Amino acid sequence: MPLLAEFDFAALTAALEALGADAWLLFDFRGINPIATRVLDVHGMATRRFFVFLPRSGPPVAVAHKIELAPFEGFPGEVRPYAAWRELHAQLEPLVRGKTLALETSAQDGVPYLDRVPHGVVQLLEALGARVVSSAPLVTRFASRWSETELAGHRRAAEAIAAIARDALAWAGGELARGITVRETGVQQRVVDAFDRAGLVTDHPPIAAFGPNAANPHYEPRAGGDRTLAAGEVLLLDLWAGVSRGAVFADQTWMGFAGRTPPPEVTRVWEVVRDARDAAVARLVERWRGGSGPPVTGAELDDAARGVIVAAGYGEWFVHRTGHSIDRDLHGSGPHLDNFETADTRVLQPGIGFSVEPGVYLPGRFGVRSEINVHLGESGPEVTPAAPQRTLLLV
Amino acid sequence: MPLLAEFDFAALTAALEALGADAWLLFDFRGINPIATRVLDVHGMATRRFFVFLPRSGPPVAVAHKIELAPFEGFPGEVRPYAAWRELHAQLEPLVRGKTLALETSAQDGVPYLDRVPHGVVQLLEALGARVVSSAPLVTRFASRWSETELAGHRRAAEAIAAIARDALAWAGGELARGITVRETGVQQRVVDAFDRAGLVTDHPPIAAFGPNAANPHYEPRAGGDRTLAAGEVLLLDLWAGVSRGAVFADQTWMGFAGRTPPPEVTRVWEVVRDARDAAVARLVERWRGGSGPPVTGAELDDAARGVIVAAGYGEWFVHRTGHSIDRDLHGSGPHLDNFETADTRVLQPGIGFSVEPGVYLPGRFGVRSEINVHLGESGPEVTPAAPQRTLLLV
Repeated sequence: MPLLAEFDFAALTAALEALGADAWLLFDFRGINPIATRVLDVHGMATRRFFVFLPRSGPPVAVAHKIELAPFEGFPGEVRPYAAWRELHAQLEPLVRGKTLALETSAQDGVPYLDRVPHGVVQLLEALGARVVSSAPLVTRFASRWSETELAGHRRAAEAIAAIARDALAWAGGELARGITVRETGVQQRVVDAFDRAGLVTDHPPIAAFGPNAANPHYEPRAGGDRTLAAGEVLLLDLWAGVSRGAVFADQTWMGFAGRTPPPEVTRVWEVVRDARDAAVARLVERWRGGSGPPVTGAELDDAARGVIVAAGYGEWFVHRTGHSIDRDLHGSGPHLDNFETADTRVLQPGIGFSVEPGVYLPGRFGVRSEINVHLGESGPEVTPAAPQRTLLLV
Repeated sequence: MPLLAEFDFAALTAALEALGADAWLLFDFRGINPIATRVLDVHGMATRRFFVFLPRSGPPVAVAHKIELAPFEGFPGEVRPYAAWRELHAQLEPLVRGKTLALETSAQDGVPYLDRVPHGVVQLLEALGARVVSSAPLVTRFASRWSETELAGHRRAAEAIAAIARDALAWAGGELARGITVRETGVQQRVVDAFDRAGLVTDHPPIAAFGPNAANPHYEPRAGGDRTLAAGEVLLLDLWAGVSRGAVFADQTWMGFAGRTPPPEVTRVWEVVRDARDAAVARLVERWRGGSGPPVTGAELDDAARGVIVAAGYGEWFVHRTGHSIDRDLHGSGPHLDNFETADTRVLQPGIGFSVEPGVYLPGRFGVRSEINVHLGESGPEVTPAAPQRTLLLV
């Protein structure tokens, strides 16, 4: 498929107008900017610099090296080759002089994922007479927006995953009650089998963690080294899948407890984490309906969730961001719910989706995470699955 | 081996003084800066930002993420962990405020290989009170300098390679004269066998190209699709190898002609290319002895070689840089002889090495390249092999 074959140029015109920019300038050199190669869907060997100029109006222009023109075959616009660096500058200058250009930069490296253009390239463009602004809203719009088909697939996966998670946790508790050994990899296998039956695909088996293993946010069970479930332990199950390869996955975490009467602190931490999760969603709903104030950002929702956990005295144990962008990549290139690891002040635009997954991890004891997804539709936020976990599953 | 185990901190002090900088600040995020990972020799998963501060005096400081401290075990200095971005900024500020810091930047992207730090990171450091300068001379000094052992290994490889090239070209001409079919892959194989006997290692078979194939600077012979030598054709042989894996390789190109009387244009192009090669070396020797004027750069030697070819009317057909840095990588991270593909204004410092390999490529007809290497010792330039090719080998 030629480059930009499915690109929505009309939407780009509107987005550039909203941004006050004349063009989106996609730069790459040896893969330094994965956003450029993702948006263009460019493949093949690239050892020289290229610049693709997508203007508010008029045809796109690619400035590419003479010996690396092959990836630009079928480019929907003009291809201007260069060999010597003076030719590169001569090609760029008339394109950029006096223009405001959006590039993958992020003020003070606030969002490192978005900060992909070397300092010297910005200097060069400024020396050629351009003004450089961040392409953040363009990346969100053109790399992270879900199509209607993708949304439908995500919904179907989300409901199936929720049922599979409830079943797997209940099964583990039932086996334990009957005196049968239950291992983390056993729960994992039950989920993988259920994915197969449901026609879901994933890129990695789910994470099942019992008791203290749930207190390690990076835990993965390994056959032979995994834990056996004991009465009185929490069960954490983090699972993700989609209706096909390249689909928008659903990504959820469910929590269980092996027994009838969890210790008060387990119940307390569960409620704090659940309320933190719901506080992020409530803030989004409220800000969306209100329609006043500055646009809502991923950082603001992280603050909303984290505030609940900090107020409850567990802030020190919530050691990661609240959520991540989800698009054709499970960890997408849109805004993350993050004002902790990074300062993600990107605006949450209609059409995108993300996870909401606060957690509290008490080393050596237990951990609790609760994860749902949100799609921000034109008419407001939609949570998947439709019925998120309200209470700790007593299994 | 721990990070920086063999790093020459005394030399760093001198280099930072010469540069007028207080520290070298090595930044990386997900591999965006391969120079940082090369200098530190850091391995393992890296998904978060790190900054390694190598000051003019005092111990080094690494600022690294709490969940990615493993690569910094044994670090010869202080490791300051961070989790939240505000902690990162708080760790950085006292290190950088009021300091002049060298980072992998290149003014106006003159040398893209060296321009590895995102614009937002430079903004952040400036906002925290630092001044940023290019680390170019530090990269040359600490990533590209040859040790005495490496120089000795390079010399041995260079002399062996020169003999192997002469032998292989003479053999090809002799076979042809006896009516035996000679293929490009046959010459290639003869060289590979000779490398084995000489105890040399390489990462890729040599390039053997006959007649019009020599006019393609990217040509590689493939078994079955390669050319058979005919009388009256040029032979190009580009071969590289070292005394061991990770050694500093020697990299040469030798030219032959199948017959006694080459056409005048073949002789003419050979002489132009050879004289261009020697003009680059002569310029270096002259500038080195003279000791006046600004330090000599890779760009200046490219201009010297290219000037000879342009003056002879073949400038349009010299489509690549004059030479590349050679260090533990065949294409090293030091200065290239290049004012064509890029503007490599890095200074040629004692201790480094590079190829000198101008070429003229006449599409569909023939091509000529001549390649030698230069090590810039403390007492001046040394060409390898000791006796470079003076005349076209008539074979």
